[in-house]
Amino acid sequence: MADQRQTGFVGAGGPSAPTVFFLSDSTGITAETLGNTLLTQFPGQPLERRTIPFITTVEQALEVVGVIDQLAATGPRPIVFSTAVGQDIRAVLARSRGHFFDLFGSHIGQLEQALHTSASGQPGQAHGVGDAVRYQSRMAAVEYAIEHDDGQSLRALERAELILIAPSRCGKTPTSMYLALQHGILAANFPLVEEDFANLSLPEPLLPFRGKCFGLTSLPVRLSQIRQERRPGSVYASLAQCTYELRNAEDMYRTNHVPYVNSASMSVEEISATVLQRMQLHH
Amino acid sequence: MADQRQTGFVGAGGPSAPTVFFLSDSTGITAETLGNTLLTQFPGQPLERRTIPFITTVEQALEVVGVIDQLAATGPRPIVFSTAVGQDIRAVLARSRGHFFDLFGSHIGQLEQALHTSASGQPGQAHGVGDAVRYQSRMAAVEYAIEHDDGQSLRALERAELILIAPSRCGKTPTSMYLALQHGILAANFPLVEEDFANLSLPEPLLPFRGKCFGLTSLPVRLSQIRQERRPGSVYASLAQCTYELRNAEDMYRTNHVPYVNSASMSVEEISATVLQRMQLHH
Repeated sequence: MADQRQTGFVGAGGPSAPTVFFLSDSTGITAETLGNTLLTQFPGQPLERRTIPFITTVEQALEVVGVIDQLAATGPRPIVFSTAVGQDIRAVLARSRGHFFDLFGSHIGQLEQALHTSASGQPGQAHGVGDAVRYQSRMAAVEYAIEHDDGQSLRALERAELILIAPSRCGKTPTSMYLALQHGILAANFPLVEEDFANLSLPEPLLPFRGKCFGLTSLPVRLSQIRQERRPGSVYASLAQCTYELRNAEDMYRTNHVPYVNSASMSVEEISATVLQRMQLHH
Repeated sequence: MADQRQTGFVGAGGPSAPTVFFLSDSTGITAETLGNTLLTQFPGQPLERRTIPFITTVEQALEVVGVIDQLAATGPRPIVFSTAVGQDIRAVLARSRGHFFDLFGSHIGQLEQALHTSASGQPGQAHGVGDAVRYQSRMAAVEYAIEHDDGQSLRALERAELILIAPSRCGKTPTSMYLALQHGILAANFPLVEEDFANLSLPEPLLPFRGKCFGLTSLPVRLSQIRQERRPGSVYASLAQCTYELRNAEDMYRTNHVPYVNSASMSVEEISATVLQRMQLHH
């Protein structure tokens, strides 16, 4: 294991780019999230990234420091993002020869003042099961999203908190999955197909649920490109067909006052944040 | 909209608990992630939480400050976590009467020194499409996970980077989905059923792929509880059946040198971090 780790460290970054470490006493998700967000401010740096989660003892912390120090001795000083909570572990990690970013310690004192109480000092529970009810609702939402993917099941649409509607390949499925997994939203999705465009009204199964519908659209060129990857040379993927479907879908959204967004250049995270905001869905 | 927002602010927290804001010029995901991680250090505080994403103009920032100041005038000072990047927007947000946590500004100077270069100052791209190749691989992985959920399709198992195996309801599906969506891992999952326990060898379709397999197990009591919710009073949900399946699954994992973890008290995030670490899967 140690050998594999070491091998992993020489790599993409080359000898002159520092290795970035995300260290945690828990999953490492928070360290990765903020660390990577900060690093997006420095585009073009080919940095090798390593997450080391579940550092829960001083011995493990010392081992990690050994790895960092070895890299520092032979190349640029590594960059170390840490969300470790325990004082003793943080103290050990802070002594490495890397540039140390204590993402936890930087803010906890100010937060103690704001809340007039002391931090618990317990290792990170942010991505544990935590609130069991909330956790179970997320897991149930993932099941629901799979069952109701792509209009597969019209049963229980009344349970949906959100119904994403769009022509094929505009991003309904991954967005439903993201909203379910991260926010516990019961998100169904429903594909708009050619026969739905015979008139401007919503497809019949959606009529009772207009207020839960959110539409996605895209750019014809972009949609055609995505569909070509799936079915090259098909009518389905043609620019004409994509243009036709998107124009009709947008007309349908507007006529029925269904809020919608053009997802052509958006990530699932951006689409999801937009949907949550526009639909006032609590999470 | 303004009215709905205001209504939302009086609530769960009651008059004496401060409202927590997550402010961002992008999705707000990073602010929520670190902010919530810090707040887990103060359990039992019933705090109302509001995410306001996509604050991209000074006018929008001023509007948000107005909302915060109004709350501060009539109750406890709100807590404000911000990842806004632009200097002008940060300056406006910092002037609110809330407790201001500049999650971005706190670290960017030190990072500029470490990397010997200036931050770009561009609004957050961390959760945008970013690297298009990486983004497409995540989206393809979500599709793959849905297609290969619960042993539905044994085609293309050779494409899998990971095959999660376990008795029903140990967490295979949400874990596959999480690994796909967050890390772009091609994760299939395969249910172990009674007939698979006739002997200790892996089910036939998995034999060529032993090295990609990772097992999940649970505690009989916990598994029985989860299955009872789905099929109350069934043999499937009985403690005897759960005990039998879990014991046999664990024997199978050990005999075939398949790494495994007991997921009974773990979240999908914790299971995923463990799988990534143990299987040395790069992301």
